[in-house]
Amino acid sequence: MEQAMSDDIRTGEVAVNVPEASDASLRFIGRIRTPFTTRAECPRQGDPGDGPDCRLELDPVWAPGLDGLEAFEAADVLYWLDRSRRDLVAQSPKSDGRTTGTFALRSPVRPNPIGLARVRIVRREGPVLVVRGLDCLDGTPLLDIKPERCAFTVQAPAKPGVAS
Amino acid sequence: MEQAMSDDIRTGEVAVNVPEASDASLRFIGRIRTPFTTRAECPRQGDPGDGPDCRLELDPVWAPGLDGLEAFEAADVLYWLDRSRRDLVAQSPKSDGRTTGTFALRSPVRPNPIGLARVRIVRREGPVLVVRGLDCLDGTPLLDIKPERCAFTVQAPAKPGVAS
Repeated sequence: MEQAMSDDIRTGEVAVNVPEASDASLRFIGRIRTPFTTRAECPRQGDPGDGPDCRLELDPVWAPGLDGLEAFEAADVLYWLDRSRRDLVAQSPKSDGRTTGTFALRSPVRPNPIGLARVRIVRREGPVLVVRGLDCLDGTPLLDIKPERCAFTVQAPAKPGVAS
Repeated sequence: MEQAMSDDIRTGEVAVNVPEASDASLRFIGRIRTPFTTRAECPRQGDPGDGPDCRLELDPVWAPGLDGLEAFEAADVLYWLDRSRRDLVAQSPKSDGRTTGTFALRSPVRPNPIGLARVRIVRREGPVLVVRGLDCLDGTPLLDIKPERCAFTVQAPAKPGVAS
């Protein structure tokens, strides 16, 4: 399941030589549907407020796992960045120019290319959870959804009777 | 690498019958050192403020990946909950009694038992990142570290000159 490593390495980047990943195995539990069909269309980071509605389409066997999730405003979504190379320990993102350690970046290029987004829950439609705040490609494999209690409480809510 | 499923199922819980996970493979990039050696000792959720210092010990090959991470106050840490069963779509946590969908819980029992904690970065010591806010067992396999810009800005900081 390893993807071809199609990206060229940039100046300052460091690739490591490690054996094939084989410590644990993942199961895709569904697919993510977004309006983004090319990398150029993907936003740099999803917007849980104004981003487009995206769909987490679970395989039917896992659909009952969504029961109770609508009580939450937000969730952490984990997905598999199946087109990413996995051997860079230092990277030079194009927009930046400097070389930075992989774990100091949220780049999709990492030893375990697991994407993480904090999303706003819009509604559930049977085996589908509609959310906002994703930035991944259409068809991205889904790994997990976890409820999140305090993702969007950063700004204090307006007090009753106080104009905002 | 699948773990034995040692937990009994509780009333209302639903196990699904799915083929062995084989969609993608993970590479452990190190181990997490915590003071918690039994599940009973693990807090229900880590405390990034007052929790104990824990150590993310990276394999030497990945250590340069930490370069630049100390500029951040916080990080998302992903780890592998290698003792968890993976077949429950509905669960009845002991403390609660009700049955809830797996994706409406942050239980370690899930189809892909990837743990996620938002931690406070304390310091780096070569291939080791010292953090606060973890709740996992000592020896837990480490999968990924991602910088986080706004994890601990939920409470507004005290204003200069104002007693807190």
